[in-house]
Amino acid sequence: MSDRCVSKQTLQRLPAYLNYLRGPGKGLKKHVSATMIAEALGLNDVVVRKDLASVSSSGRPKVGYVRSELIRELEKFLGYDNSQDAVLVGAGKLGQALMAYSGFPQYGLNILAGFDSDPRLEGAEVAGKKILAMDKLPGLCRRVGVHIGIITVPGEHAQAVCDQLIDSGILAVWNFANAHLSVPEGILVQNENMAVSLALLSNHLKEVFSTK
Amino acid sequence: MSDRCVSKQTLQRLPAYLNYLRGPGKGLKKHVSATMIAEALGLNDVVVRKDLASVSSSGRPKVGYVRSELIRELEKFLGYDNSQDAVLVGAGKLGQALMAYSGFPQYGLNILAGFDSDPRLEGAEVAGKKILAMDKLPGLCRRVGVHIGIITVPGEHAQAVCDQLIDSGILAVWNFANAHLSVPEGILVQNENMAVSLALLSNHLKEVFSTK
Repeated sequence: MSDRCVSKQTLQRLPAYLNYLRGPGKGLKKHVSATMIAEALGLNDVVVRKDLASVSSSGRPKVGYVRSELIRELEKFLGYDNSQDAVLVGAGKLGQALMAYSGFPQYGLNILAGFDSDPRLEGAEVAGKKILAMDKLPGLCRRVGVHIGIITVPGEHAQAVCDQLIDSGILAVWNFANAHLSVPEGILVQNENMAVSLALLSNHLKEVFSTK
Repeated sequence: MSDRCVSKQTLQRLPAYLNYLRGPGKGLKKHVSATMIAEALGLNDVVVRKDLASVSSSGRPKVGYVRSELIRELEKFLGYDNSQDAVLVGAGKLGQALMAYSGFPQYGLNILAGFDSDPRLEGAEVAGKKILAMDKLPGLCRRVGVHIGIITVPGEHAQAVCDQLIDSGILAVWNFANAHLSVPEGILVQNENMAVSLALLSNHLKEVFSTK
């Protein structure tokens, strides 16, 4: 089941379903239906039904899904049951915050170490994780078989860091830098671009006030 | 010019253009064309030309844009020239990291204060910003006229916090919690959902390895 392909749209909704299912129960029932989830999350119930059917075949008409089973299937599908190692490059404020963030393990992400070109940071520890010099990056990645690289350097250094990560065997890049990254085919770049979010927020306010 | 409406897609590309224009110059020229930007960012040049035309009318055929002028127009359009005050609720690890993040002012965001329901945090300072008790939230927002609220509480508390922010006059919510938020019409929710990003990264790796 977990080898099935789903659309990116479906994939983006699955964590919200999982969050709802795990969520703090106002009288949590053993069974849960697509309709219940759709109502709680303000989504179309046909969409939710299709999404769930692509992840699980345990749903039964009129009864729905067994909550605990559906949680397990979603976790498996999303890879949360199988921790992925990652390295982080750029141990500045944002980088250190991510290294210390205690929420990642529940999503199956384990940051092994941080890397930084600033020699003053070398050897420091953040939440029990070491900050290492850049020349240690390829060796560690190859030795442990790390496939996820997190970029938290200033925008102007992001492409060079990205190239180094890919040379070290990284297949998926989580980019927090405000920079467009060019990568070879087969490498995924997931952008977490706060500047874009801020532009959208600011634009909304501009629209609100221009109509007042 | 800055009152024009642009599509969300355009808006999402503009920060990358600005970043490229501001970027570290390998021989920065005074003029810049849509084609140059498109090539540098790996985008279609028709798209870039249309995007720029919706923000600026200063471009001239064959010559392009004056770089410094286009930067100013983009900054104005994106609201980066006009700082917006924000409040943050949830001064845990992620919240404190955002409060301390020195990159926001350049995007026109100014976090005034953090709020938390944990009395042990009350009165503490993060990067010169106070953490206040939740009952101070409506007063501060109304008094200063704050319109942006940042949510960094655990998922299960996010909706309640969101409701409090909206009651306090917030018009745009930047949501870092892993929760779907229901809001009245006219309120924008911008989700920064790390769980979704992680699901996309993990799914990519699964696909890579299933075809090997």
